[in-house]
Amino acid sequence: MEVRLIRHTPKPELLVASAAKLCYSKVGIEDITKNLSRDKQNEFIKKLLKMGHLSPFEHISFTFGIEGISRVCTHQFVRHRIASFSQQSQRYVSFDEAEYVIPPAIKKSLKTKFEKYTEDSLKFYRQLIEEGVAPEDARYILPQSFCTKIVVTMNARELFHFFGLRCCNRAQWEIREVAEAMLTEAKKIAPNIFSDSGAPCVKGACPEGELSCGKPKKRL
Amino acid sequence: MEVRLIRHTPKPELLVASAAKLCYSKVGIEDITKNLSRDKQNEFIKKLLKMGHLSPFEHISFTFGIEGISRVCTHQFVRHRIASFSQQSQRYVSFDEAEYVIPPAIKKSLKTKFEKYTEDSLKFYRQLIEEGVAPEDARYILPQSFCTKIVVTMNARELFHFFGLRCCNRAQWEIREVAEAMLTEAKKIAPNIFSDSGAPCVKGACPEGELSCGKPKKRL
Amino acid sequence: MEVRLIRHTPKPELLVASAAKLCYSKVGIEDITKNLSRDKQNEFIKKLLKMGHLSPFEHISFTFGIEGISRVCTHQFVRHRIASFSQQSQRYVSFDEAEYVIPPAIKKSLKTKFEKYTEDSLKFYRQLIEEGVAPEDARYILPQSFCTKIVVTMNARELFHFFGLRCCNRAQWEIREVAEAMLTEAKKIAPNIFSDSGAPCVKGACPEGELSCGKPKKRL
Amino acid sequence: MEVRLIRHTPKPELLVASAAKLCYSKVGIEDITKNLSRDKQNEFIKKLLKMGHLSPFEHISFTFGIEGISRVCTHQFVRHRIASFSQQSQRYVSFDEAEYVIPPAIKKSLKTKFEKYTEDSLKFYRQLIEEGVAPEDARYILPQSFCTKIVVTMNARELFHFFGLRCCNRAQWEIREVAEAMLTEAKKIAPNIFSDSGAPCVKGACPEGELSCGKPKKRL
Repeated sequence: MEVRLIRHTPKPELLVASAAKLCYSKVGIEDITKNLSRDKQNEFIKKLLKMGHLSPFEHISFTFGIEGISRVCTHQFVRHRIASFSQQSQRYVSFDEAEYVIPPAIKKSLKTKFEKYTEDSLKFYRQLIEEGVAPEDARYILPQSFCTKIVVTMNARELFHFFGLRCCNRAQWEIREVAEAMLTEAKKIAPNIFSDSGAPCVKGACPEGELSCGKPKKRL
Repeated sequence: MEVRLIRHTPKPELLVASAAKLCYSKVGIEDITKNLSRDKQNEFIKKLLKMGHLSPFEHISFTFGIEGISRVCTHQFVRHRIASFSQQSQRYVSFDEAEYVIPPAIKKSLKTKFEKYTEDSLKFYRQLIEEGVAPEDARYILPQSFCTKIVVTMNARELFHFFGLRCCNRAQWEIREVAEAMLTEAKKIAPNIFSDSGAPCVKGACPEGELSCGKPKKRL
Repeated sequence: MEVRLIRHTPKPELLVASAAKLCYSKVGIEDITKNLSRDKQNEFIKKLLKMGHLSPFEHISFTFGIEGISRVCTHQFVRHRIASFSQQSQRYVSFDEAEYVIPPAIKKSLKTKFEKYTEDSLKFYRQLIEEGVAPEDARYILPQSFCTKIVVTMNARELFHFFGLRCCNRAQWEIREVAEAMLTEAKKIAPNIFSDSGAPCVKGACPEGELSCGKPKKRL
Repeated sequence: MEVRLIRHTPKPELLVASAAKLCYSKVGIEDITKNLSRDKQNEFIKKLLKMGHLSPFEHISFTFGIEGISRVCTHQFVRHRIASFSQQSQRYVSFDEAEYVIPPAIKKSLKTKFEKYTEDSLKFYRQLIEEGVAPEDARYILPQSFCTKIVVTMNARELFHFFGLRCCNRAQWEIREVAEAMLTEAKKIAPNIFSDSGAPCVKGACPEGELSCGKPKKRL
């Protein structure tokens, strides 16, 4: 799996603090982009996060390039609707190599069988293609383990929501790994904004009730 | 594949016409739900569709129960973001039977091999489950042809958009079949609203340019 | 102010419970709409609400007709983006009568002056219209107190969010009155679904921190 | 009115072209950000626009700071739901000066009366404030002409939609001026992406039917 932050809104923390300042004061557009020290920005951001006034965080967005993840993972990923996706098409692109994800829980002889099975599925896929079946139809034989590539853009407010659900231990391991890698990248750019991001247990009580894993996570 | 309309906003055509009437006249809420004959409703609906004033069509929604479609199809389906989905989970539900979709283009000996291959994948999946692998991980071996079930709700404006893309010959055959079955059901309930729905070519020029299939479709 | 529930998805509690059941069991579409007793439905709904698994609540929607509210109120209202609105246009409709909202805090002589001022503004508006100014331009003179009418559709998940923000004592009194009237109506139709709806304090701690009003509300 | 572009996704045209390239080819994330000449980018962008394959344009967003526009204008503006807004609050900010918009159609003596009337409304507003009425309630007396400030973020796909509606001669003059100023700014940054943006008539037939103004616009 590879997760790379390929774009983000420049000076994101300044923008969030400035937009929030506009809501609550008489300043003009010119002013809000000036005279806001790092300390003042951080103070604003902390206050907004604490009050749950999250709309200013929508002004900044982050674009990730992700590859080496399975179609299991992307089928979950694209359920997030306040997001933009560009995914490698299995209709327009045909595959020569068996790039796939093996869940860590599949070990030893099962793993060997899994690999053999998956390699065979690629061979059958290639046979279908060669006998004239379109890639969009041949792919029905491909296991869900097959890799895909995706470009994802989310604004920071949606990232809060995404990290809350997908960094949680109750999320499946694969999308959790993606989410944690995304959070790590986002934090480098906007450390104050994402300081409390992650599973809800990093900053408060677990909301999962009887389904709780019972193992609170630490901040990344 | 089975597509069933399981709910819809009652009296949908009256509601759309009433909401539109509110925008353009002095009437009150009480009035807009009365004194609007079928003829008047139809006239309003035609006018709105012609002008592209589509927001009143958002007030009515349709809920479909769909089963016997592949994960290929639902991965496309859930890309529609102005929609609500409840899909049978491969994390919480494990499978005993090989229910799957074979693309019509896979015929004869290839079809036999496809069937054999898919049955074998279920056996391997069952073996993984029995050796203690969780369903969420065992499913990585399942081909994308495996069936799933989904409940989908969209409002009429989003259905217009969905039908425009997915009834088009350039959409893949499986989601096109779903879309056409949905349109057929929706039309029974709101014939005036969906009279022009479907691929763009049913009511005008093809927008696909050089990618056009060159075979304009007829109204369903 | 008048708030009327003019449409809702039929049998909303059964639909939510059925959609949720589909996610977690092997049942088919046919089954989910049957064999689900009222007790079983309620049990499902309680569980979903407790776990915060809110997506099944998106399948049901509610349409309200609202009149006698100010443009102050609708400017706040239409900020809710997961919603559909049809509002009486001040571009296409011109006004003869001064229908307006007076905040309860404006009393006695101030109220008399407020009324006089508003009546005068209508007269000036009428003069502008009569001298050929279009309603869309004449309205610039109208105070924000002037009444408007609106049809609003939201699904239950968005209603939860809306009620959480707008039934709170920190919301302005006018939209709070609208929200409470909407909740009262919705509760008649789906009492289990909306049992815990309202300001967050009806079922737990106030999230407003130092801005808290300190007066927890009771369930409607 | 002042419209200022205060942030945008860096290298927006490269990102759109790269994301699109990922969908249709075997390249990896590393590759898509390289080896894409300006010419190749432009070619991709033209093709995507022509086919109406608009999702890659969602990856880039633009943030505008806007001041000196009326509450008439922002009430229309915030109806766009695929957008993020931070608006100066009339609940938390009180006003000392009568900053307002006069529609150009209001001339001569009417204009003088308009100005007098608006100045008086500010005086009454100040009186209400001084007698202890909260700004959120005092504002009911303020005409809709009063100015507000807003920070708006939209992605390019939504900007296409916004410009299509709001640069049209059928839009009200004030939001049309805002939209045209936004388009002018966006074009400086991403000239290929916005080359055909604006009212639909800049690149094709008017879709407004009998309501058409009959005066096709030129590209900005």
